[in-house]
Amino acid sequence: MKNILNIGLIGYGTVGAGVVKCLIEKKRELKEKCGIMLNLKKIADIDIKKDRGIKIDKSVLTESANDIINDSEIDIVVELIGGINPAREFILSAIKKKKHIVTANKALLSESAEIIFKEANENNVIVNFEASVAGGIPLLKALKEGLIANRITSIYGIVNGTCNYILTNMSICGKSFAEALKEAQDKGFAEANPAFDIEGKDTAHKLAVLAMLAYGIPVKFSDINCEGITALTPLDLKYAHKLNYEIKLLAIAKIHHNTLDLRVHPTLIPQKSILANTNFENNAVYIVGDYTGPTMFYGKGAGMMPTASSVISDIVDIAIKTGGGNDNPQSKLQYFFNKQNLSISPMFALKTKYYLRITTKDKKYVLSNISKILSDNQISIASLLQTETNEHGDAIIIIMTHQTIEKSILNAVDTLKKLSTIKENILTLRVEEDM
Amino acid sequence: MKNILNIGLIGYGTVGAGVVKCLIEKKRELKEKCGIMLNLKKIADIDIKKDRGIKIDKSVLTESANDIINDSEIDIVVELIGGINPAREFILSAIKKKKHIVTANKALLSESAEIIFKEANENNVIVNFEASVAGGIPLLKALKEGLIANRITSIYGIVNGTCNYILTNMSICGKSFAEALKEAQDKGFAEANPAFDIEGKDTAHKLAVLAMLAYGIPVKFSDINCEGITALTPLDLKYAHKLNYEIKLLAIAKIHHNTLDLRVHPTLIPQKSILANTNFENNAVYIVGDYTGPTMFYGKGAGMMPTASSVISDIVDIAIKTGGGNDNPQSKLQYFFNKQNLSISPMFALKTKYYLRITTKDKKYVLSNISKILSDNQISIASLLQTETNEHGDAIIIIMTHQTIEKSILNAVDTLKKLSTIKENILTLRVEEDM
Repeated sequence: MKNILNIGLIGYGTVGAGVVKCLIEKKRELKEKCGIMLNLKKIADIDIKKDRGIKIDKSVLTESANDIINDSEIDIVVELIGGINPAREFILSAIKKKKHIVTANKALLSESAEIIFKEANENNVIVNFEASVAGGIPLLKALKEGLIANRITSIYGIVNGTCNYILTNMSICGKSFAEALKEAQDKGFAEANPAFDIEGKDTAHKLAVLAMLAYGIPVKFSDINCEGITALTPLDLKYAHKLNYEIKLLAIAKIHHNTLDLRVHPTLIPQKSILANTNFENNAVYIVGDYTGPTMFYGKGAGMMPTASSVISDIVDIAIKTGGGNDNPQSKLQYFFNKQNLSISPMFALKTKYYLRITTKDKKYVLSNISKILSDNQISIASLLQTETNEHGDAIIIIMTHQTIEKSILNAVDTLKKLSTIKENILTLRVEEDM
Repeated sequence: MKNILNIGLIGYGTVGAGVVKCLIEKKRELKEKCGIMLNLKKIADIDIKKDRGIKIDKSVLTESANDIINDSEIDIVVELIGGINPAREFILSAIKKKKHIVTANKALLSESAEIIFKEANENNVIVNFEASVAGGIPLLKALKEGLIANRITSIYGIVNGTCNYILTNMSICGKSFAEALKEAQDKGFAEANPAFDIEGKDTAHKLAVLAMLAYGIPVKFSDINCEGITALTPLDLKYAHKLNYEIKLLAIAKIHHNTLDLRVHPTLIPQKSILANTNFENNAVYIVGDYTGPTMFYGKGAGMMPTASSVISDIVDIAIKTGGGNDNPQSKLQYFFNKQNLSISPMFALKTKYYLRITTKDKKYVLSNISKILSDNQISIASLLQTETNEHGDAIIIIMTHQTIEKSILNAVDTLKKLSTIKENILTLRVEEDM
């Protein structure tokens, strides 16, 4: 057993700097807790001149990731540059050099997980990725090890702080989407270009990672039906509240027999549920196991030190499973695919309740026309609200349906759109109540 | 590396039967996931005739725990009999025989942890105890490993389902304590003799376990200031709501510099906090780390299969850390004490806001008398509510104080009690808002 593990860090950005800060500040405590010295041997970044506010020996810095990959003394490569390339090459090369990997790269995992884990298994190294989903919440290890006795029946995740901040602000303060986004940007909870977050793509990447872990099958971003939050208005949140729901952007994975349902979309969930009470930039992942029933993991999903905390726990995990170094018996709890005979179900087969927001010119018979079209598509109405006519002479109709099939909704919406009395787009939201 | 781990189970009660059920039902899945066969070799119980509804070979059963402890082929002893004796002797004897231990025994751990972990370290075996706190929630491993980079600044736990069920029922339905307790008993969420739960003792045992893990010091039940929920009335919940608080029985651990605050009592917490939304029999533990900030772990705290799920994850943890068997390099992440220079702070030094419920004969000057006594003790009133006089001519006064010291409150209450205008006991509740 070695008493020291040498770490090479590729990517000295915000989270990278957090990791370095922790490895320096808590060097002694970590050694005491895990019995192995975690030694930061090299840091590679394209910009090694920028002051990160951390005192380190300059000789540790390099501009070349290969200086880390080719250093035979380095046991663990921490990849924090993000994106597909060159992260993919760096990781695959390091694995071939028998180095364990710690990464926060959800985009890469939801694209190339299969090849990465195949290589890792062949080279008998561990790939950990706790920081890739819900930054500061020790969630993936709980899913992989703590819940190991369970068949995971469903996962509902609020995993994008930007979207949750915007939705909370719209919900609590009645702000418009644009106002709420602006405020999120001002407070640093949204990027200058927020498209990736608000269109649900970031959430879908994280869902791919969660589903891989929970179900042992490779899941790609392209497998996931993904809708963002840009079409929502404060009125939708107001009517959702009237019906005792909250609207959250959820990453959803559910199994029904041998099919797996994977989707990201704004979802109506019961207002009193603990998940609905996850507000502002916070993240929460609600996981239902066949033995445990519902569990939920809540906390900060991003930020320098929360995310660094997860990276460090991944490093320590390798230390305790290998006993230090890469020449020791390795944990068997590696991640491998093809464990479950599951196929991903098509979106049109989804069965749930729906919320429809229809803007109409306030003409006679419009309600009876809508009712007929829904009825023709075997959609049964559970409740219906019609607003007063606005200054343009338009009225908004909010319909909650009983359980119905996505295909029926798609067909009905197609027909509804053709009515001359219907204005703008029809908003379709799905409901989840099992929490 | 061995491909099989032999397990001996002592205690074939509800949770024990859940563990057996899981080891049988999920034998193949667990082998696939952790690479090691988990083989249930023996089960000891004083009653081996009772039908537990599980098909097992009768030759596995024994009435003597020593048949397990002395079996040289058994690698892991799972202790599920509870209580101090004879569980303590069984565990210590098994450790001396180099067997790893999995236990759910919070009473024992909050009494004899120091000797158990000392023996475990000397014998190079692992002692796991995930099921001892918050049954179905994979929390202790997250605290020990997932949050390893953090200094834990505070823990607030709702860890007793009985109390939370009663308080939720009083809060939401306005039921009296007696009615709510009766309903909890009828629904199986409270024991026929509920004293251990409603007096806060069960919560204190769990706090001892949480604090040991978080702070690396041995904590005994007797170190913890412990108050139950029996003095609460629906009126307290009603007034708490008016002030935007909820009342929960909390296990609290907080560090201030080098002192550790350990207490169990009904606590006013912000109604909108995620912890306040943990209702009925559910448990939640809110943990604040210096890096992660607040995290919360939510789920079922008891029950046959949720608790069994945690026992199984403890077994798998030993499998993956030892690579099977007890002759392999062992994880360094064993639990050991004296890591932190912390002393437990005395209760009288606590500084917080207080809620006081005072029943008075509705006489003139009573309010000015109360105000004077509080003021004499340097207690500043933040808000005051006085109810209408009831049929006995009594009025109830609810006072919220600003931050003050427990000692001042104790002195003031002592003086108040002597006033002839004060009836019954004065209820004192503490407030926590940092969530």
